[in-house]
Amino acid sequence: MPTIDFNSDMGESFGVYRLGADREVLRHVTSANIACGFHAGDPRTIRATVHAAVEANVAIGAHPGYHDLQGFGRRPMQLSPDEIYDITVYQVGAVKAFAEACGGRLAHVKAHGALYNVAARDHDVARALCAAVRDIDRDLIFFGLSGSKLVDAAREAGLRCAQEVFADRTYQDDGALTPRGDPRAMITNVDEAVEQVMTMLECKRVRSVNGAWVDVQPDTLCIHGDQPGAAAFAAAVSGALRAAGVTIQAPGISPQA
Amino acid sequence: MPTIDFNSDMGESFGVYRLGADREVLRHVTSANIACGFHAGDPRTIRATVHAAVEANVAIGAHPGYHDLQGFGRRPMQLSPDEIYDITVYQVGAVKAFAEACGGRLAHVKAHGALYNVAARDHDVARALCAAVRDIDRDLIFFGLSGSKLVDAAREAGLRCAQEVFADRTYQDDGALTPRGDPRAMITNVDEAVEQVMTMLECKRVRSVNGAWVDVQPDTLCIHGDQPGAAAFAAAVSGALRAAGVTIQAPGISPQA
Amino acid sequence: MPTIDFNSDMGESFGVYRLGADREVLRHVTSANIACGFHAGDPRTIRATVHAAVEANVAIGAHPGYHDLQGFGRRPMQLSPDEIYDITVYQVGAVKAFAEACGGRLAHVKAHGALYNVAARDHDVARALCAAVRDIDRDLIFFGLSGSKLVDAAREAGLRCAQEVFADRTYQDDGALTPRGDPRAMITNVDEAVEQVMTMLECKRVRSVNGAWVDVQPDTLCIHGDQPGAAAFAAAVSGALRAAGVTIQAPGISPQA
Amino acid sequence: MPTIDFNSDMGESFGVYRLGADREVLRHVTSANIACGFHAGDPRTIRATVHAAVEANVAIGAHPGYHDLQGFGRRPMQLSPDEIYDITVYQVGAVKAFAEACGGRLAHVKAHGALYNVAARDHDVARALCAAVRDIDRDLIFFGLSGSKLVDAAREAGLRCAQEVFADRTYQDDGALTPRGDPRAMITNVDEAVEQVMTMLECKRVRSVNGAWVDVQPDTLCIHGDQPGAAAFAAAVSGALRAAGVTIQAPGISPQA
Repeated sequence: MPTIDFNSDMGESFGVYRLGADREVLRHVTSANIACGFHAGDPRTIRATVHAAVEANVAIGAHPGYHDLQGFGRRPMQLSPDEIYDITVYQVGAVKAFAEACGGRLAHVKAHGALYNVAARDHDVARALCAAVRDIDRDLIFFGLSGSKLVDAAREAGLRCAQEVFADRTYQDDGALTPRGDPRAMITNVDEAVEQVMTMLECKRVRSVNGAWVDVQPDTLCIHGDQPGAAAFAAAVSGALRAAGVTIQAPGISPQA
Repeated sequence: MPTIDFNSDMGESFGVYRLGADREVLRHVTSANIACGFHAGDPRTIRATVHAAVEANVAIGAHPGYHDLQGFGRRPMQLSPDEIYDITVYQVGAVKAFAEACGGRLAHVKAHGALYNVAARDHDVARALCAAVRDIDRDLIFFGLSGSKLVDAAREAGLRCAQEVFADRTYQDDGALTPRGDPRAMITNVDEAVEQVMTMLECKRVRSVNGAWVDVQPDTLCIHGDQPGAAAFAAAVSGALRAAGVTIQAPGISPQA
Repeated sequence: MPTIDFNSDMGESFGVYRLGADREVLRHVTSANIACGFHAGDPRTIRATVHAAVEANVAIGAHPGYHDLQGFGRRPMQLSPDEIYDITVYQVGAVKAFAEACGGRLAHVKAHGALYNVAARDHDVARALCAAVRDIDRDLIFFGLSGSKLVDAAREAGLRCAQEVFADRTYQDDGALTPRGDPRAMITNVDEAVEQVMTMLECKRVRSVNGAWVDVQPDTLCIHGDQPGAAAFAAAVSGALRAAGVTIQAPGISPQA
Repeated sequence: MPTIDFNSDMGESFGVYRLGADREVLRHVTSANIACGFHAGDPRTIRATVHAAVEANVAIGAHPGYHDLQGFGRRPMQLSPDEIYDITVYQVGAVKAFAEACGGRLAHVKAHGALYNVAARDHDVARALCAAVRDIDRDLIFFGLSGSKLVDAAREAGLRCAQEVFADRTYQDDGALTPRGDPRAMITNVDEAVEQVMTMLECKRVRSVNGAWVDVQPDTLCIHGDQPGAAAFAAAVSGALRAAGVTIQAPGISPQA
């Protein structure tokens, strides 16, 4: 019986600034990636988001990024592997403390934005991320783009890895996502999105925009929470998958990798 | 046989900026209060300092402060108890993760600068600090000015408290330290400093600048690391106390309170 | 013929975070107080806001605050007069450069949030603010709560001062605004708001919540832009005042004080 | 009669953190590049440094960098040209206001660290820098590595440019500085340094590490202030140049380009 996790980024508000519809999105996901205060989030927001995730019985994850609030962690910064290690321990440690203070526990780590993208291609950065996660708690599950350096590095570090796939994005021949600038990048039709995920679950592969088959391991599905209609899209995909007999649950409960 | 801890603030460098003589001071103390990145310190500095403390077999503490690098946490900020709670969980969690990642463990928490001073007088602030520490790990030892609200709040929270005393500062009738502006504030003579500490250890009290007796519980002695001659002063006090049969060790090893 | 300025805070977005309805509000005001990057705003937001104000022919003002993005400048910080001076020169200078780079000119300065409130009561803080403004450009107009220390300090510094009044807030006997916690604090009825402003313009005084008369100098009216219905309220007050023959224009064009 | 400017980076302290020996260095230079608060410096430090430069009769320059205090502006950040423009206007505007408030005037702008290095190679970044400087004040002099994109962009923008050369660094065939990792990068012998500068002044060229001649325009000489022995090195080079009949003065007084 196929199983998959639904994860979404959360806790991205800061001070008086509100971002995202966390309460709504929490109803549709099984894993929450919570911003750690570097690219978004602040101590108060982290506590409120962790608390809401605990109440919603959603797995708590840390979502570390570059220290660049103004750029929302989307601008690559040239950090050494040691610097990557350090900012990861710091951020994950902060969210882990909130998880425990709220009576929950930290289940996973997923890098944010430019840090995620850089690490997906750069083995040294991915390795530094994984070393930090392993040194904090080797039972944490590491989320990374299916087939990327993030997955390789997690395995080397001895971490369980949840490989991430996308319902609303198309793939290229090498397993990378089609860049957003490309008109074929997005899948907006729910039926097509569900079909892509079902194919992933059943065949462990996805057809690229060029028609090639790309191997994937669909452990966790990325749900975008900050776009209009995102919650409805998530609900529709979720409903269709459940109807097809797919169990949606966090990897901490039933390890995927 | 009397026992006392020697604690000092550390890890206050930031980026290219160097502050303090941590390596030297680590040779003279049994507890290190490590800046958490808000008033001083950064992820790299925290890791290096935690690592040095582990190597020196010095107990690791988190030293949270106001989020004000430019003011070094010395400018009071008007935060609600909830905000105090949140910034404390965040900072202590970050340092705790480094302690564990370095193969050590977090032993204590001591608030920094204006946060320490405000909380020593303001029960609500002290209570928020202690609630945060307790919610992270109820085995953490809370350091606070002997006889202050910090001690009261730690007891209410069910935390072990190490009451802090000073060798180089004089006291007022109410147990507060004599403000630095007062010419009688500092004790620079080592013999006088040692005598003040010995009286505290033997009689659980100290004579104020006005000649009154003030009750104190000398669990941990504050060693200032950032002044010229500080290490020599610490070494002299340490030597004299040991010669008088005093054991100098961290409270985690032999709980004081 | 009575004249009054309508001013509103703007440019309070930061990075990906949006705040306020600046474009809409610009249609209803004659002076824009633009956040300088300390309590809100960032370089990109400042440029966009200055540009929009130039296009809308609205007078450009700098709106300096405490350096506390997380608290939106609403938490009092204990700064020395020298520190107040320094953060004011820095912030006003930054916005002034954008004004000039966009082909406009800086017309006024109004302190934000807790800095405004503290300075309204504390002469030393108000004096430091005014010294900074005067040292940058003695032709700048200083906005301050009518009858407060801000006005006194501006006069001492030789600055033109635009005294600020409120249409939607009630006054206390000493000229202070009724705190928001008080149920009588807000005036939500447009007719009452207009009547309060007309009385101010005609009689240079306002009736307090206790029925006492308080002297005011209504040079500029504060328009809140961040509340639902704010633009409609501003439009209604504006329309009623114009119908009564009041000219609404920035003080730079026709100095009030 | 040859003329050259001596410039040095200054005002790089932050809060309690001290960096550099500004007072000492000010005795040896004719232009001060003052950190603007993004990669180093804070409002208080800027004011103190501007004031000291005015007193020493040294030309005041703004020294904008990436917004990365922890990395001291040495880590490249991927910013769009618009973002470069915005952070430049902001930082230069802030220092310009201090210059004017202190009774001086802003004379030049020199980019810092990674921003300088990136712009020396990237025409779009250099162009954005120059557009910002020109839009603030077209009389500002733009400092840039001799022969680099910084010089090209300044000319396009219609700015006077002071081309920068080095006494203590060797050059490569393309006019770039030999990277510090190369053992031949530094010139530590004062006589060799003086000879390199004299050749530049007399022949408008410098011999590369490979023996090739590289064209240079020696308008301003970079003096490093943060290394031990830097002031002595500067004094020795200064003395030798003056003895050889070279006038050392800021380009604002006698435009070079």
